Order: sequence, then C-alpha cells, then structure tokens
Amino acid sequence: MTASLTAPGDVRATRPGAPQPAAFRLDTASLHASVTDPALTSMTLLNDIAGRYPRAVSFAAGRPYEGFYDTGSLPRQLRAFEEHLEKEAGLGPDDVRRTFFQYGRTKGVIHELIARHLELDEALTADAESIVVTTGAQEAMVLVLRALRRDAQDVVLAAAPAYVGFLGATRLVDIGVRPVREGPGGIDLDDLTEQIRRARQEGLRPRACYVVPDFANPSGASMSLEDRQRLVDLAEREDILLLEDNPYAFFHAGTPRLPALKALDRARRVVYFGSFSKTAYAGARIGYVVADQPVTGDGSGAVLFADQLARLKSMLTLNTSTVAQAAIGGFLIENGCSMERATRRVAAVYRRNLRAVLDGIEERFGRRSGFRPAGAVSWNTPSGGMFVVLTLPFVADDAALERSAAEFGVLWTPMHHFYGGAAGFHQIRLSFSVLTPEQIAEGLDRLASFAATGPRLDRRTMTERTPS
Amino acid sequence: MTASLTAPGDVRATRPGAPQPAAFRLDTASLHASVTDPALTSMTLLNDIAGRYPRAVSFAAGRPYEGFYDTGSLPRQLRAFEEHLEKEAGLGPDDVRRTFFQYGRTKGVIHELIARHLELDEALTADAESIVVTTGAQEAMVLVLRALRRDAQDVVLAAAPAYVGFLGATRLVDIGVRPVREGPGGIDLDDLTEQIRRARQEGLRPRACYVVPDFANPSGASMSLEDRQRLVDLAEREDILLLEDNPYAFFHAGTPRLPALKALDRARRVVYFGSFSKTAYAGARIGYVVADQPVTGDGSGAVLFADQLARLKSMLTLNTSTVAQAAIGGFLIENGCSMERATRRVAAVYRRNLRAVLDGIEERFGRRSGFRPAGAVSWNTPSGGMFVVLTLPFVADDAALERSAAEFGVLWTPMHHFYGGAAGFHQIRLSFSVLTPEQIAEGLDRLASFAATGPRLDRRTMTERTPS
Repeated sequence: MTASLTAPGDVRATRPGAPQPAAFRLDTASLHASVTDPALTSMTLLNDIAGRYPRAVSFAAGRPYEGFYDTGSLPRQLRAFEEHLEKEAGLGPDDVRRTFFQYGRTKGVIHELIARHLELDEALTADAESIVVTTGAQEAMVLVLRALRRDAQDVVLAAAPAYVGFLGATRLVDIGVRPVREGPGGIDLDDLTEQIRRARQEGLRPRACYVVPDFANPSGASMSLEDRQRLVDLAEREDILLLEDNPYAFFHAGTPRLPALKALDRARRVVYFGSFSKTAYAGARIGYVVADQPVTGDGSGAVLFADQLARLKSMLTLNTSTVAQAAIGGFLIENGCSMERATRRVAAVYRRNLRAVLDGIEERFGRRSGFRPAGAVSWNTPSGGMFVVLTLPFVADDAALERSAAEFGVLWTPMHHFYGGAAGFHQIRLSFSVLTPEQIAEGLDRLASFAATGPRLDRRTMTERTPS
Repeated sequence: MTASLTAPGDVRATRPGAPQPAAFRLDTASLHASVTDPALTSMTLLNDIAGRYPRAVSFAAGRPYEGFYDTGSLPRQLRAFEEHLEKEAGLGPDDVRRTFFQYGRTKGVIHELIARHLELDEALTADAESIVVTTGAQEAMVLVLRALRRDAQDVVLAAAPAYVGFLGATRLVDIGVRPVREGPGGIDLDDLTEQIRRARQEGLRPRACYVVPDFANPSGASMSLEDRQRLVDLAEREDILLLEDNPYAFFHAGTPRLPALKALDRARRVVYFGSFSKTAYAGARIGYVVADQPVTGDGSGAVLFADQLARLKSMLTLNTSTVAQAAIGGFLIENGCSMERATRRVAAVYRRNLRAVLDGIEERFGRRSGFRPAGAVSWNTPSGGMFVVLTLPFVADDAALERSAAEFGVLWTPMHHFYGGAAGFHQIRLSFSVLTPEQIAEGLDRLASFAATGPRLDRRTMTERTPS
C-alpha cells in the first residue's frame, strides 16, 4: 500500500510558488525549568566527560555488575512465566496470550510473585493488591510525588546527599525538597524533626521523607535498627509518610541484615519502592511500589493509595511492559521468588570489591601509607553496597574530575552533584560495581597520584566553587 | 541470609509497652487533583460497568484484535534483534549482552529501525537522533507536554471529542486544554485559528495543537490532503507546534493513504508520536516521538528537542525497557521494517468489521429499515479505523449504558467522556476491533432494541444530563 502514499515531494510540487518557511527553533527559555535543571543534566555532563576518556579507570559508573548476563536466559524465563500462568494461575491459552501481548492490568501481572518475594526476603507481608508494578522504581517515585504534590505548599524531605534520580523526580512534578543532615548512621533524626518544624513554620506542608536505609547512594550510610524504629515512630508523631527505597539491601558485607522500614511499619506510614535493576537486571525497567495506605474521600472506587497511583500510571505509561514483566516474573520463579538467593553470586562480587577498595585506600592514604600530608585524605567504611566516599584536602569538582581523567586516567563522581551544588566540594564517590580487583588497584594508584598533586589545583576554581 | 533478617515480630517484642498506633489514612483531598480527575477515572468506571456484564456484546473495548498473538514469536524476535546487533550493528558479545540487560541509551536502541520504518511506510526521512523510544506513545505525550508547560499561562489545543489518554496526560502536568470544533473532515481549522486568537487575548500562550489526522479516536474523522497542508501552514503562521498522533493510519478501508502531517512539515512544526500498540502489540509498551526541532539557549548540550525530552525521560522512566525494545526490534526486522506489511492481516479484519458495522447499522436504522422514528438515529461513515459514532434521539450517558447492558446485553462508550462531560450526550462510540461479524450482528440487534425503547428513558436523567 506504500505506493498509495502521496510522497511529500508530490505535495510540494502542487504548491510551486510556496516560499520555504524559516526552520522553526525551540527556545529553551520557553520550556519547563526541569529541562535545564542541574539535577537532570549533571549525570549527562558527567557521562560526557567519561565518554571522552574511554581508557580511564572509572570509579564513576554506578551501573550493576555485568558478568552474569546471558541472553539465553530470556526465552527460558519467558517460558517459565507462561507455565506459571497456565498451571499456577490457571489461565486458558487465550488469556495467557492476552497477558503477554494485550493492554494489561494497570497495577501489573507479577504482583503476587513480588508479594511472595517480600514475604520471603523481607519478612514483609504485603497485600498483592497494594503493589503497583512500575517502569522501574523511578516511575514509582514520580507517581508518588505527583500524587503528594497538590500545590506549591507541599514539600518532601530527603537526606543530603541524595540520590539524583529522586531529586530529578521532584523537579518533574515541581515539588520542593528540604535537605536533612546525614551522618554515618544515615539520616539525622533530630535534624529531620527540626526541618519539618521549620517547613511548617514557613507555611509549607511536609508530606514525606525519602530514605535509603541500607548503603545509601551516594554516601554508603546505613541506619541502625534503633534508628529505623525511631524514624517510623517519628513519621507517626510528625504525621508524614516515609518513602523507602532500598535497592542495595542484599549487598551487605557480612553484617546481619536489618529489617526494612516497611517491616517495622505498623501504622502504614511507609511507602516502599522496590527495584529489580540491581537484583535481576536494569534493562527490563521493572520496579514496583507498595502503597497500602487506606484512602478516604475518594469517590471513584479507590480503596488503597496503590489504586490512586494506578490511576495516575494509566495516564503516564498505562501498564508496565508485559514482556518485561514476564521476563522478570520468570526470573522470580526460577529463583523461588528469593532475591536473596538470586543475588548470592553478584553480592559476593560486590563484597570482594568493597574489601579491595577499602584495603586499597588504607594502603595508599592511611596513616602508615607515607601519603603526605598524612591524614589529609579521609573516607567512610560502608558495611555493604556499591559506593565509598573519599574526602580530599582540595576542591574535587567537575574541573578537577576533568583534570583527573586527562592527566591521571581515573574517573570518579564529584559529590556536589548529590548536594544540589550546595556542598560536598571536597568529596568524591567511588563506585566499584563493574571493576575487577586489578582495575581497582590500578585506579587507586592513579587516584593517589592525582590526590598528591591536588593542592596544585587552580586556586581560582577553588575559591569560586567552595560554598561560602 | 534470610535467617539473619530480624523479623518485624522480634522488633515489636523489644518494645512491649509500645501502644498500637492508629492506622494512617490518606485523604484524597490532600492529593493532586489529577488523582480524581474525570479524564483519568472515567475509563475505570466504564470498565467497572463492563466488568459487571461479562455476557454482554461489547462495542466498548477499544483494544486491538487478538487473533494473531503467538507467544512463540517472542524468543524468535528476541533472537532476530540479537543477530541484528551482532551482524548489522557489529557489536561484540559483551555489548550485545549490555544492550539487553544493562541501563541503556535514554533515547533507545531501536531508533534506527524506527527511522527505516518511517522512511518506508510514511515517506518520512527522520534523523534517528531525533527519535526518542518511549514506554508507549503515552509517555511521549507526557514528556512533550511536561516540556511545553513552563507555567500556568501555557495551554494546548485539541479537537473535541479527544482521545482520553491525551486529556489525561495534560492533567498530569497541569497544562490547560482548549477544545476546538471537529467535523467529519477532522479538526475545524477556522475554529482552531479562532481559539488560538482567544487564548492569546486572555493572556495565555497556545503552545501546540494535538491532532489525529486519520480515523481519530473516538470520532473516526479523517483529514483531507488539502486540510493537512492548510494545518501545517496554519501552525507556521500562528507559531504553534502540531502534536501528531496517528496510531490507526494503516487501517484504511480502501481509500488511498494520505501523508502524515510530519511528511508535509517543512519547517519542523510537527512533533510526531508513534506507537507499536496497534501495529505490533500493546503489551510491549513501545512507542516513540520524533522531535527534530532545533533548540536554542540550552547550555547543556542538547541540540534537538529530542535531547531535551530524553533528559526528562531520564528522570521519569530512564531508558525504555530494553527487553521490550528488543522484542519490537525483532518484530520490525521480521517485517523488513514495514508496518504496512506487518499489519496486512489485521487491517483486513478491521476493514471487514467496519463494513459489517456500517451495513448492519444501515439495515437496522436506515430509511428502509422500518426503525421508528425514521431517521431518528444517525451515524458517521469513517473510511477506516476502529470506531463508528452513532447519534441517538435520547440521552446516552452512563446511566443509559448501565440500562443497555442490564436489559439488552450490549455495551458501548458514551461519547460525553471524550468531551470532558461538556457535550456528546446523545452520541455513543462503537468499537469493533475484537468482535466477529456474528457478534457484530447480534450486538447491533440488541442495540436496535435498546434504541427503540430509548425514549422511555428516565426523563429526570435526560434533563439533568443534557447540557443547557
């Protein structure tokens, strides 16, 4: 039928005298502010720098380990999910095909498998109806923030430094973020109470606080059991929600796992974000949100917050890709719905690498390392996860990164990006998830050379970029 | 390691005196208005009615035909895309695995295949870099509307009646929609000019007009070649963008296909939304947007509108599911990137059903049908697509639908939902995409019985619901 299509050429031909119009140009100033918001652009800029130094050792890439990927697993896992629909769910052939190819249930089709996983791995009993399967946890954050942002008075709180993806989501829905101090033990609960009080004083409505209780990105900080309990109590007392995001929970280095905030949540104060990007693979873009808060005053049949989020989702992406859900569903089935079991191999890789990074830093920057000035470089010692933070005696901003890459062949992430450019100018994030111990050793050697010459850094940049 | 997880029970045990907090309840009034917006809830309500009458013949379901679905196609198409990466794209094994499983290119990985399809089927030469692969065309609409909505003065225009998915997307980003009159020939260009003028008079910024040039949902209206050219000229003259959405273009009943607006667009005034939901399958949730508008005043490296949309997408869903892209990529490859070719069988089904619906309506409601009052029922005669609109001599609202389902066993869609509740109270949309000719005949018999008794409808409802 293509022949029947009138080609644009023919059409122009019908209008011989028509002047060629000036090519339209779109002015960025006429677009929503988020388009040029640093929270959305910084990662692009960092990737650009990284892209220009392909031979550098990169402590910048936060992406998961790639060594266990196998395209052969996809047909197998799709088939496993198909069998699950036939046998366990008892669907007929037409309904099985519909589940794979037709517009589907907005809240998703692997919600029961996810509920099993939460029961098994998190000792968390969640009603499958309170789960919305999303296009990665990122979409879940946008849905929750969109719902909570009624007007300009609504704000959320988050520890600073914070995950860039969360900050970006707040920009998309125009909801303000109030930073909260963070220590080695995670978010500072006294400062959280204080920030909530201040926000209310300013006539704002603090709606929720975003928390990553285990091995936070970027700081690597983790919360104690006592603080988790205190935080849940604080949420009840202060009448806010907690937005829990825990993608690294399985990557603990020996220390016993602590319960998720959601597992301590007796008053439904916690909205729980789940992701399969680190436990299965990121490409599928499968995440979910547990939103079991009962709803009042909704005339249109929603009984749970999850149902209201599903309504927003139906206008954002409709259902989450059924093909991707089927693949992750099969992955869950093959692992008996235990992500703890599914992540054993990769968790061992991250543990080995964390050890290599911490030992390697001690060797090169520790008291006995001969590094001068001694003690000038400090770092944290996370008990798991994918990140370590190093504090340098000079400004380590994007200009310093450029120099580190160009002159020393090593990449890292300037921490100021996670503080919204307000702090962290002496800190760098070291990510080690995709490196070998050999690459880690080589990278740390290069980093030591860079750090030793650090003070030679352009003074102008320093004074300019250090927050006054 | 699950054993190492402190179960919530144990934790509670550590706080014997702790009082059980009151279960938190979320008040809908404290949430964003879109949560309860009719544009987002009406489809849910209609599905609820449909759900209560499973044995009714349904002219309400707008979903694509399901007869050609085959789960066996997925492994084959995933493999076809893998081979494409190995041979055509020349990727090594690691990069192939990365493409399937790792976080990916924000603008997508099947953009070149999509560009080939546009060249082949739409005589449309698009730079692959101007294409952003999205989680269905729905996400593309949200991205474009989010970008265009700088502040409360920005508005978009759309023909009334309009696709509910577009109206819902405008609610999510709080951008106003100005309705434009629509006739059998599609959007009324004089009224469009007038509505733009009025909006400017009110101090608003009309940014773009949403248009479905072929077999619009719900009206079935199509634009002539002359009007397409006039509309593109109007966009240049009035300095607005056109948001073209054309999911039904391949489902024309014999009439020669006309060029897409984008194929007539010499000044880059058209942003083109593409979808594989009707041409391949909806479950994958793969769509895309062609946004080749050059950008000025963007300090952060974006050269095309597509790059700015990708930046927003990186905070909404990151990249589109690579597994789903691979499946659709394989589908494209198997069909030589021609959706015209891929849709031949299903297009024949839709043509057959359109014929059956139009002939069946003529038989039952036409001048010679003996239906009384003669001429009381009128309808349009679309030249393709999946919808026909019937106008009844009485109010056909949700209450009437309930009665039609309960007493006559036939479902349809009240058109007022597509007018934002402002009009269309005598019109109903008949969708026939998933029906057999036998079901269509039976359904139209039931509809005729319902229509014959229509005037008996509760007067109160009529006067109440008819717009004054």
